[in-house]
This record gives sequence, structure tokens and C-alpha cells, in this order.
Amino acid sequence: MTREELILQIKHKASFLCIGLDTDLQKIPKHLLEFEDPVFEFNKRIIEATLPFTVAYKPNLAFYESMGLKGLMSLKKTMELIPNSVFTIADAKRGDIGNTAAMYADAFLGGENSDFNFDSITVAPYMGEDSIKPFLHNKKKWAIILGLTSNPGSGDFQQLQMVNHQKLFEVVLSKSASWGTPNDMMFVIGATRGEDIGVCRKILPDHFFLVPGVGAQGGSLTDVCSFGFNPDVGVLVNSSRGIIYASQGLDFAEAARSAAQKLQMEMKQQLAKAGLLNE
Amino acid sequence: MTREELILQIKHKASFLCIGLDTDLQKIPKHLLEFEDPVFEFNKRIIEATLPFTVAYKPNLAFYESMGLKGLMSLKKTMELIPNSVFTIADAKRGDIGNTAAMYADAFLGGENSDFNFDSITVAPYMGEDSIKPFLHNKKKWAIILGLTSNPGSGDFQQLQMVNHQKLFEVVLSKSASWGTPNDMMFVIGATRGEDIGVCRKILPDHFFLVPGVGAQGGSLTDVCSFGFNPDVGVLVNSSRGIIYASQGLDFAEAARSAAQKLQMEMKQQLAKAGLLNE
Repeated sequence: MTREELILQIKHKASFLCIGLDTDLQKIPKHLLEFEDPVFEFNKRIIEATLPFTVAYKPNLAFYESMGLKGLMSLKKTMELIPNSVFTIADAKRGDIGNTAAMYADAFLGGENSDFNFDSITVAPYMGEDSIKPFLHNKKKWAIILGLTSNPGSGDFQQLQMVNHQKLFEVVLSKSASWGTPNDMMFVIGATRGEDIGVCRKILPDHFFLVPGVGAQGGSLTDVCSFGFNPDVGVLVNSSRGIIYASQGLDFAEAARSAAQKLQMEMKQQLAKAGLLNE
Repeated sequence: MTREELILQIKHKASFLCIGLDTDLQKIPKHLLEFEDPVFEFNKRIIEATLPFTVAYKPNLAFYESMGLKGLMSLKKTMELIPNSVFTIADAKRGDIGNTAAMYADAFLGGENSDFNFDSITVAPYMGEDSIKPFLHNKKKWAIILGLTSNPGSGDFQQLQMVNHQKLFEVVLSKSASWGTPNDMMFVIGATRGEDIGVCRKILPDHFFLVPGVGAQGGSLTDVCSFGFNPDVGVLVNSSRGIIYASQGLDFAEAARSAAQKLQMEMKQQLAKAGLLNE
């Protein structure tokens, strides 16, 4: 999906919601365990229920890999359900030397022998330029680079101060951005502190940010919007648990739908307030 | 495998060789393509030919993931061939927040629903402590953390100078090491410059280093040993292409055997010179 197509979808649905399909056999409603592929059944109903309110789905690969090849088969079937008009993110956080990174790009972005054809993949920056560039060769595909994450460990290295008094994550943002364009690169920017999003927006005025940490992890949607919006909206806000596990009973899909719709309505208000809806 | 068991194997085989099973359909001998599972056939013959000379095998997950679920099935069958006396490394370079990292640990280190039971997994440090700790819960399993890599991009962030005048990779080594012990944690330390291995050895006298970059990438075995050895040997040296693609003809397995044996004999000399063989 191109940047223009993504922006169109955001305006069409009045939503910049990304739903994290972090499906865990321990947490899905018990009655689904009777199906041959409970993970796929769960994902299918979540997608059907939430599709009108979301512009992106983001399965985290760890959840599927932990279930072995069977889990990856459930993911493959899940991804085949999602229409092309929805942006898809392989939250895989891969990162390896050039020729190996090219194989990860094949694996997730629709290589010849691959089972997956995501629009984008999350990528770790520690190994530098040759570990990122192979994800940027296709005009409709994206690398989403870890910039500033929202977990406790983000302070250990990302916030370290460099000799030039920038923090490591600031250097990661500006240097990585020079390897691609705002049309093939986004950044993961955690929402636990709104001011941090503002710092990142100052460094990268044009890029889309994928923002986790709203809701369960404590970030505020209002802060994300006031610090993160740019003239093309420029943010995708992820919610996983708050939507997909809104209920663990028979009504789980309906509850997920309501939770997604509630967030989408808040997003619509924010978009309207910022003058970012065309109507 | 425990540290003691690994050291015993190294002394028993007079080898600290790790063979990278980076199997690429484009590079394996053409006659293998007639088999139902060419990747598995190739790996099987490489393992049979090289087993006497190596203490570890390290498949890079990207190579298998790029072939889809079929590739991962080939890897599963491959790993089942490797005896318990050989150390196994999932070169997966994973890194994610705490609860997700725990799922990657399940996926590769023998979780209940997993198809893989490696001794160790390579891990990226950018997300900090909670992304590393879940790999350290089992006394026979290891996290192998990216410290200083040998690719061109390693200069982009790893070599950046911090406000305290250490380089980022030095901070990564010392801080990460505080989260585990030399019994459950190793570090990837590239061999392109021997002096760098010396710097890392000074910071971490006791840890094992997994050293790529010898051979094809230009590192010298003598340098690795003189800068990297500790009283428990303390290094595993990886070779991939130089062994598994030593020949692309019908004699590929025999050529791989010769290449592995040649490296092992050089390693035996280095071990003897350093007084690290018990005989």
C-alpha cells in the first residue's frame, strides 16, 4: 500500500487505528477451543467485527511462532482474510546483515516462496544501514523501524546520552530516516510520554509513527494527537488487548467491535478538531 | 546444554567451531533439487559430514522463513538430526517487550507448543532488560546478545560514542551482562578487527563470545584466539559459506568435511598453543 492509499483510507474511515492481533490460546474464549484452529476462528471473528473501524492489523509474530508451525499456519490463513484496503504490519522486529535482511524481506513482504505478503514489517536498528535497506526496495512496502519503544527496558539503551548530547533514539531516527523516505519508512514511537512523541515529530516532520502504548500501557490518545499529528495525520495508534480481549465470553466479537468503535469515534473527534477530515 | 558440558565438548573435539546452516536453495548443488525436501537433504549430508569437527550448529532463521512454512518444516526435521552433545543456536536475532520475548523463548527454546528446542537464541538488545530476561529462565538455555557485529552497518549505531566516552557496544556489553551470568548469556562479537575482540574481552572476561566474520568476511582465527581466549576457551567461531558451500558439485559433503576439518585442526593448534587442551 502506498502512502497516498493509506492516507485515503484514514480519511475514509475517520480512523488511524491499528489492531494488534496478539492472539494467545490462554486468553481467547474457552468455547473456541473446540474448533480445529481456535486461533484462526478467533482472528476471523475479531476481523469481521472490527473491520469498519480500523485501517491496519498488526499480528505480533512471537504469538504465532510460540505455537509452532501450526501457529504460523493460523496466521497465514488469518492474513488471507484481510482485504487489500487494510494496511498490514508483520510485527516481527527483525534485523540482520544485508543479504540475510533481504531474506526476511522475502519472508514477510511477499517473496517468491513466501507464505506472507504483508505491507510492512517492524525492524530493529542495532545492526545499521545494511540491515534496513533491503526492506525498502518495493514502492508499496514499508520498513517500520524501532525508534523509541514504550516498554520499561526502553530506558536502558534508547535513552542513553551521546557525546553530542542527543539521545540514542534521536540519532536512530535521524540517521535511519536518511536511508529511505517517508513513503517507505515509518517509526515505532511509544506513547507513554506525549512529550517524547513531540521530540520525535520535530526530528521527523513527515514520517508516519506507529504508536503503541495507548490504553493498557498508559498513553493518552489526546497527547498522541497533539504531539504527533502532521498534515497527513502521520500516526497509526495500535491497540491490542483493549480490543481483542474486551470480553472473554461468548460476546467477545461484539465487545471487540464496541471497543474498536469507541476508539475510532475518539479518533474521528481528534481528526476533526485538527482539521484533518476532508468533509 | 550447560557451560560445563559445552567446555567438555570443546576439549573433547579440540574444536570451538560453529557451523552456520544458512541453506539457500539458489546455492545448494543442483542434483539435490530432485529430492522432495532439498534443504533437508543438504543439511543432513552437511551434518553427517561435519559432525566430528564442530561443537555447534547455527541455522539463521531468515533462510528458512524466506521459504515459507515449508522452510521451517525443513529446519524442524534438520534440528531433530543433531545429537544433544552438540550446541544449537537459533540465529533469530529476536527482541521484543517482556511478555512477547517470553513467547519467543517458548518458540525457540522448547516451549510446550513449540516445534523447536534449541540450546540458545540470538537476541537484539535495543529494547533493553525486559526484552532479554525472559530468555534466561532455564539453566540449560542461553541468550546470545548482539554486542558488536561484523557487518558494514555496525558502525552506524554500535560504534557511536556516548557522553561517558564509552561506545554504545561497550555499554550494551556491560549493562546486558548484569542481567544474567556467564552461564546463561553469550555475546555476538564480530571478528573483522581483532583489537575489538580484545576490548570486549576486557569488559567481559568470563563470557563466551560467538564470533562471526572469520574467513569470508575477512577476520583472522589467530587474532580471534589471541584477543578472545579466556581460561575456559570462551569463543565459538562461526563459519557458514566457507564450509557448507566449499563445493557446489556432487562432492559437496566431502568438501564441507575437509573445510571443517581444516578449521578444526587450526583450532586444535591454537588451543594447544594456549595450553587449553587437557591432554
